[in-house]
Amino acid sequence: MSEFVPSTVRPEEIEARSFAIIAEELGEHSFTEEQFSIVQRVIHASADFDLGRSLRFHPQAVEAGIRAIREGRPVVADVQMVQVGISKARIERFGGRVHCLISDPDVAEEARRQGTTRAIVSMRKAARMAEGGIVAIGNAPTALLELIRLVRAGEARPALIVGVPVGFVSAAESKAQLAGLDQPPFITNEGRKGGSPVAVAIVNALSLLAVSEAGAR
Amino acid sequence: MSEFVPSTVRPEEIEARSFAIIAEELGEHSFTEEQFSIVQRVIHASADFDLGRSLRFHPQAVEAGIRAIREGRPVVADVQMVQVGISKARIERFGGRVHCLISDPDVAEEARRQGTTRAIVSMRKAARMAEGGIVAIGNAPTALLELIRLVRAGEARPALIVGVPVGFVSAAESKAQLAGLDQPPFITNEGRKGGSPVAVAIVNALSLLAVSEAGAR
Repeated sequence: MSEFVPSTVRPEEIEARSFAIIAEELGEHSFTEEQFSIVQRVIHASADFDLGRSLRFHPQAVEAGIRAIREGRPVVADVQMVQVGISKARIERFGGRVHCLISDPDVAEEARRQGTTRAIVSMRKAARMAEGGIVAIGNAPTALLELIRLVRAGEARPALIVGVPVGFVSAAESKAQLAGLDQPPFITNEGRKGGSPVAVAIVNALSLLAVSEAGAR
Repeated sequence: MSEFVPSTVRPEEIEARSFAIIAEELGEHSFTEEQFSIVQRVIHASADFDLGRSLRFHPQAVEAGIRAIREGRPVVADVQMVQVGISKARIERFGGRVHCLISDPDVAEEARRQGTTRAIVSMRKAARMAEGGIVAIGNAPTALLELIRLVRAGEARPALIVGVPVGFVSAAESKAQLAGLDQPPFITNEGRKGGSPVAVAIVNALSLLAVSEAGAR
């Protein structure tokens, strides 16, 4: 087997070059430095500048996310693709864990019994588990709508909601509702686009901030 | 707990409404009916019409993918996000399995020993495993470049390559190389965009075709 190696092999090197391209092509923006580190990672994961520009941050969102991670609070993902994408090491070094409840047997059983979806029931379970933690929703608008309902009813108190579901039915509407909340802090985006890699990129950017000097304020 | 249920709850119903919106907004295109069922699912997963329009199909790609699934050949995903996103039931009913090799201990060990990446070494292992099967790459351009090298060297003979890595460094170039292959058949796209949900959507659309009447030709 020949030992040809592509010219750019090192993931760190590719990432650094990518981030330089993104900063240059994005040009002017009104994000804070910490928000921009999140926007940059979302663009890196999607190659989509419009998606990056569509991100919306509650004023306390970055601080709340960093604090939750540094305090070892749980991170609950709506689907397995988000759970497996999140870098575990930086969450776990502070004692936190990354959960996904949608395949739990009790969630499936409860959804069947109530004639509703596992996405909705898993958010009710997440509300009990993620008090003071982060809930990251990359897939199901119905999960985000249910979480917003629980927040309004005083039944969910996460530190931060990362809500970036993708789709043509209810996705944009669910995110507009999230952006209208006064509390808890949120990170979301405007429009139909979003998805698992976007949710993953946001949480991974937050955990990088949590371990960096900047996060050690 | 109140029993408010959002107006659109059923995933099947949401999907049907989404697909109608996509067909209407996409308008004219030159994809075949089977190719369009894949394009539609990619747009559904990304809410990105440009990404859908950027898909490129080798003339035998759909047929080769359906046949590989119906013959129970392996599906190898480059990363775990792709592996967990692929619907297993329709693959496994034909005897196939969905693999991801990047976290295998022997892959990590070999990468360390050779001073290269796990993405590259995992493709060398995939080449041995996925003869006659499907290799789906949603993340790493270096993995796709290595697989193309193995194909050219006669060391990899998959039935179909689904190559849709995302990114700013080498992604577009790796996909242009793939689109230049005469064999094996491929499904790819032009440009920087792509990603795990795109790879997942393509494989899931193929397995739907495999189980449908259309796939039973």
